[in-house]
Amino acid sequence: MNALSRLIKPRSVAVIGASADASKTSGRPVAYLQKHGFAGAIYPVNPKADRIGGLVCYPDIASLPEVPDVAVVLLGAERAHVAVRDLAARGCAAAIVLASGYTETGEDGARRQRLLIEAAGSMRLLGPNTIGLVNLTDNIVLSPSGALEMDEFPVGGIGVVSQSGGILGSLLSRAAARGIGLSKLIATSNEVDLELSDFIEYLAGDPATKVIALYVETVRHPERFRAACLQAALAGKPVVAFKIGRSEAGAKAAVSHTGAMAGADRMYDALFRQVGVIRAQSFADLLDVPAALATGRAMRGRRVAILTSTGGAGTLVSDDLGVAGFDTPAPDDTTAAALRALQTGSEAVLDRNPIDVTLAGLRPDLLRGAIRALLASPGYDALVIIVGSSSLAMPELLAGAIQECLPGSDKPVLAYVSPHAPEVAALLTRSGVPAFAAAESCTAALRAMVTVNRFAAETQDAGTVPPVDIDGLPSGSLDEVQAKQLFARFGVPCAPERVVTTPAEAEAAAKALGGRVVLKILSAQITHKSDVGGVAVGLDADTIGEALVRMASDVEARAGVRPDRFLVQQMVRGGTEFILGLHRDALGTAVMLGMGGVTAELFKDTTMRLVPARGALSRAEALEMARELKTWPLLDGFRGRPKADVDALVDTIVAFSAMAIQLGDRLVEAEINPIFVLPQGEGVRAADGVAVLA
Amino acid sequence: MNALSRLIKPRSVAVIGASADASKTSGRPVAYLQKHGFAGAIYPVNPKADRIGGLVCYPDIASLPEVPDVAVVLLGAERAHVAVRDLAARGCAAAIVLASGYTETGEDGARRQRLLIEAAGSMRLLGPNTIGLVNLTDNIVLSPSGALEMDEFPVGGIGVVSQSGGILGSLLSRAAARGIGLSKLIATSNEVDLELSDFIEYLAGDPATKVIALYVETVRHPERFRAACLQAALAGKPVVAFKIGRSEAGAKAAVSHTGAMAGADRMYDALFRQVGVIRAQSFADLLDVPAALATGRAMRGRRVAILTSTGGAGTLVSDDLGVAGFDTPAPDDTTAAALRALQTGSEAVLDRNPIDVTLAGLRPDLLRGAIRALLASPGYDALVIIVGSSSLAMPELLAGAIQECLPGSDKPVLAYVSPHAPEVAALLTRSGVPAFAAAESCTAALRAMVTVNRFAAETQDAGTVPPVDIDGLPSGSLDEVQAKQLFARFGVPCAPERVVTTPAEAEAAAKALGGRVVLKILSAQITHKSDVGGVAVGLDADTIGEALVRMASDVEARAGVRPDRFLVQQMVRGGTEFILGLHRDALGTAVMLGMGGVTAELFKDTTMRLVPARGALSRAEALEMARELKTWPLLDGFRGRPKADVDALVDTIVAFSAMAIQLGDRLVEAEINPIFVLPQGEGVRAADGVAVLA
Repeated sequence: MNALSRLIKPRSVAVIGASADASKTSGRPVAYLQKHGFAGAIYPVNPKADRIGGLVCYPDIASLPEVPDVAVVLLGAERAHVAVRDLAARGCAAAIVLASGYTETGEDGARRQRLLIEAAGSMRLLGPNTIGLVNLTDNIVLSPSGALEMDEFPVGGIGVVSQSGGILGSLLSRAAARGIGLSKLIATSNEVDLELSDFIEYLAGDPATKVIALYVETVRHPERFRAACLQAALAGKPVVAFKIGRSEAGAKAAVSHTGAMAGADRMYDALFRQVGVIRAQSFADLLDVPAALATGRAMRGRRVAILTSTGGAGTLVSDDLGVAGFDTPAPDDTTAAALRALQTGSEAVLDRNPIDVTLAGLRPDLLRGAIRALLASPGYDALVIIVGSSSLAMPELLAGAIQECLPGSDKPVLAYVSPHAPEVAALLTRSGVPAFAAAESCTAALRAMVTVNRFAAETQDAGTVPPVDIDGLPSGSLDEVQAKQLFARFGVPCAPERVVTTPAEAEAAAKALGGRVVLKILSAQITHKSDVGGVAVGLDADTIGEALVRMASDVEARAGVRPDRFLVQQMVRGGTEFILGLHRDALGTAVMLGMGGVTAELFKDTTMRLVPARGALSRAEALEMARELKTWPLLDGFRGRPKADVDALVDTIVAFSAMAIQLGDRLVEAEINPIFVLPQGEGVRAADGVAVLA
Repeated sequence: MNALSRLIKPRSVAVIGASADASKTSGRPVAYLQKHGFAGAIYPVNPKADRIGGLVCYPDIASLPEVPDVAVVLLGAERAHVAVRDLAARGCAAAIVLASGYTETGEDGARRQRLLIEAAGSMRLLGPNTIGLVNLTDNIVLSPSGALEMDEFPVGGIGVVSQSGGILGSLLSRAAARGIGLSKLIATSNEVDLELSDFIEYLAGDPATKVIALYVETVRHPERFRAACLQAALAGKPVVAFKIGRSEAGAKAAVSHTGAMAGADRMYDALFRQVGVIRAQSFADLLDVPAALATGRAMRGRRVAILTSTGGAGTLVSDDLGVAGFDTPAPDDTTAAALRALQTGSEAVLDRNPIDVTLAGLRPDLLRGAIRALLASPGYDALVIIVGSSSLAMPELLAGAIQECLPGSDKPVLAYVSPHAPEVAALLTRSGVPAFAAAESCTAALRAMVTVNRFAAETQDAGTVPPVDIDGLPSGSLDEVQAKQLFARFGVPCAPERVVTTPAEAEAAAKALGGRVVLKILSAQITHKSDVGGVAVGLDADTIGEALVRMASDVEARAGVRPDRFLVQQMVRGGTEFILGLHRDALGTAVMLGMGGVTAELFKDTTMRLVPARGALSRAEALEMARELKTWPLLDGFRGRPKADVDALVDTIVAFSAMAIQLGDRLVEAEINPIFVLPQGEGVRAADGVAVLA
């Protein structure tokens, strides 16, 4: 057994600093190990006690009768590292350090944290500042969490990794009350050694775990996280993550335009999407969605049957599903006939959905018949059963009737419980029918059941592109011409242009380029050219000379510097403006695509993809980016517009990503804004851009 | 006492069709009246029983010993109208008809419903198809709802009106479990007589009710609803509404462009906003938000202190508040010093928010001190207390400590309960500290506590405008010129233009108008001119003749009709495009303002206001509309743009609304698209428009 397996499924546990007083935090781990039926050896260590909870208590680590698989260290931050050193010396596989007072409290704490790491050597560490771990599959609880005061927990297929100890307790107690079965819960907290990805990997290989739920504050090692999630995907185990820090992202000021439009939280969106992680939109979803996915059922379409014995609640669920883009069509004729055959003299109207079978709640045979008819119907991909107060009298009957129908179909079956009846909901959930008290939870669950099987880890392979010759690249903040030359080298088509310094040169350039042209100042210093009057559009050879003179004066007046170089550029017409940029932060490097122009900026219509370590984004991913934009219809023939050259846009995104990957840290900043996507067959044209090379 | 008061607070109740079997629906009303302590007279009516629940049972309505204030009619739809006629004949104030099988089931049902209305005459009716009403203030339950099986309900200040009977039961049982006190609950259902607005008015005048909660499926009488809500606002009682039908709205196809962008559900948004109704975004909010508002506390700013003894949950709440635009600043120096003075030897860091006072959960004196310091701090407008598992051991201590601090401040104090602990949450809520298990609920509650005092019913007065001479208006589908003449008559500035039929006329018109011009076909039939090649921009006197000839051929080729009239219009430059239109449906007539252009259309950036019965929208409302748009910054100097002539836009919105009001039903359709808003001082210009006059 490796160290991680010994940590999660130990045969022996030492509890360092255990107290005989079970009401104290330091008294709880031994008490909870015993209470929840740990079958292995427990070694309390405390020089001041002889026996704890009926067990021999040892004065120190040296005197333990065997090397424990794992130790729970309950000492404070000033002394924990001493115990850790002793445990490492004896060959213990892993230590769980609960003390707080490390990096989270400042410089003194950071010093203590370094001591701790040093003391552990090659022994694995969980924490510090953790609440420990709970292995429900094997009745092993290595935690003082107050949630363990409960006597019993439903055991099931959801493995939880939380970067907060308090949240672990919250999830444990909430899941238990809901009848949601968990397998393992691990709080990683300060993550000086073992972290999120270690446990995702472990759970991906854990036979008891079917779904992995993550409470994420920060992903410290994105590449490891990516690999671990892809491993889970290959093992067929969905990963659901709730990540906080959504609003801090907004507060982070970013220098470049791209940065401002794509906050750090959106990088997590990109990362999660790329590795198939389903993002929980609320903390409640972090239990609701895994509870639904743990049934192993998936939705093949978006059509939901709602079976109800109470009108209002059925409408509530139907309405929320509708907002999320699900369909709730009326039963087809065959299904309606099957339903009618069940009813005897009732006035229920069966040509609608929600399907109101008022009697079904009280008559299990009717209920079974209706459920079977709806699950057999080719017109539905899932079933939501509304539990009204009439069904509450005999909840076992209700749960039993639904449960009997489950083996006949692999479609999702969920329940919405309208009155306050948590025990009925828990009973249903335990019976294999995830039950919710909020319509939004049904919707979130079904949405995940639609997407879960869409992700294929295999498609995450990077595109391959031949490397580009990067000899002789300039460095520093490039001017517009240099920036576009850089992009062009990697295959980005740019609008034809000439550098000029005088009105006469400008006229000649306009003549050579033909048609209407744009005149811009050329400067590596002034990035917002139009703010200082440095851009004029729609010029021709007749008007450009005068425009240049006027522009020179205008810019001098506004920016304090008289521009000496200008760019004459062919004016791009008939295209749709986009912005293509880079975003870089602790999570990695991402390519950002967004609708261009000042209006679009207000709507923040952008999408991102983290780039792989080698190669380029695949064409499939690049296309998906374009399709994700709310403004995608503008490329796709919206309101009679010509279809745009999406192929060329995709090529350009791939080329841009290849540039980012090949140049790596050398490419400090890069943005094409705007890039025009022309009608089909006419390509794209980068019209302006900035780049900073290290 | 009027009939409504006699219905809600009867001294005597007849139960028609009562059964002696309390397990049957027809047996429950008498049983529940007794169980929940009704102090008045109960008269069961059933020819087949002598006594029910120990009471004398009467064979028919005629033999009742007195005229009952109210009757609960439990008979089926075939017989209910007979009882209703008898009750009306005896002078009963109101009847509650529970039977279903009326309009909701088809034509037969509609016939029965007409019979019922006729039978009632001047007697008031609640229902049919209702679950009745529950008056918790006075221990009067007139309902067979299964939720009344519970023995006790917290009585409080929230009055509930629901258009669904099942939902009434759901709210009743959910509120009870949460410790949320209700005053009255009324299910109006089919609303053949008494409806939503009757009860809003009643509750507005009910001393026991502080907040009104509505479950809305449809507002049948918008003008009455408007008046009732304004009455509640004047009485200082917030109204919170959850409305379903959000997704059906999207499905409704609408012919005009405006209609497509503004679905019926958005009309409710407009209506609610205009009468100060807070829209609950989820069904859960329909209890959470009133629970918070029932404390009578309001937020003066957006700064929230979060006091926690568990790190993760505090971050969770803080993050969600941040997403909603709340601030969670660190304590100021004075407050931090006051907090530090409470701590003894702890390592808690007090320069952050969430404010983590780990010990406070267990030491009421510390907790009280911290709460007082935070409520006294001028840096905070509200306090959220995080309840972790450490606080669960002695919930009374916790609740007591918080409760003691409440009188010292009028700032909102809420609690977030992190572990599963519904009884602790209910205790807190009953103690005056609304407690929630979801961060989103805290956010929704605080958001409502910010907005609730902003609405002033007095400002809803319509603007006054002099009537316009409308003699000689054309009728039918107007062409572009006629439409703009109509708009101009009401004071909407339009771009100068000339109607032409030949290239020579077009050249002359272009010369007269000066600068660049636009050429368009003029037709009352073809509304999407650009789809058939009927628009050319940027022309001048030299180019327009040729353009006209080409356009005539193009349009003929695409539309099958050769255009014979054209419009030459001054080309508007430098403005921002808007769309100003009308939307009309069952709720009334609304003015819609939206950002113009094809990109904006994809983002559905529109806002609406229902027009008052007389006069016009006020300038304040018109300005608020513009400010609500996501694209408002484009008018307000975004990224160095010149500030736009918002005054002129406001004038135009007011003028457009006055036109809609004065013309009333005669104005079938009206839309200005686009209208350009020019820089400050330069006004607005309507550049195109459609109108249909009856």
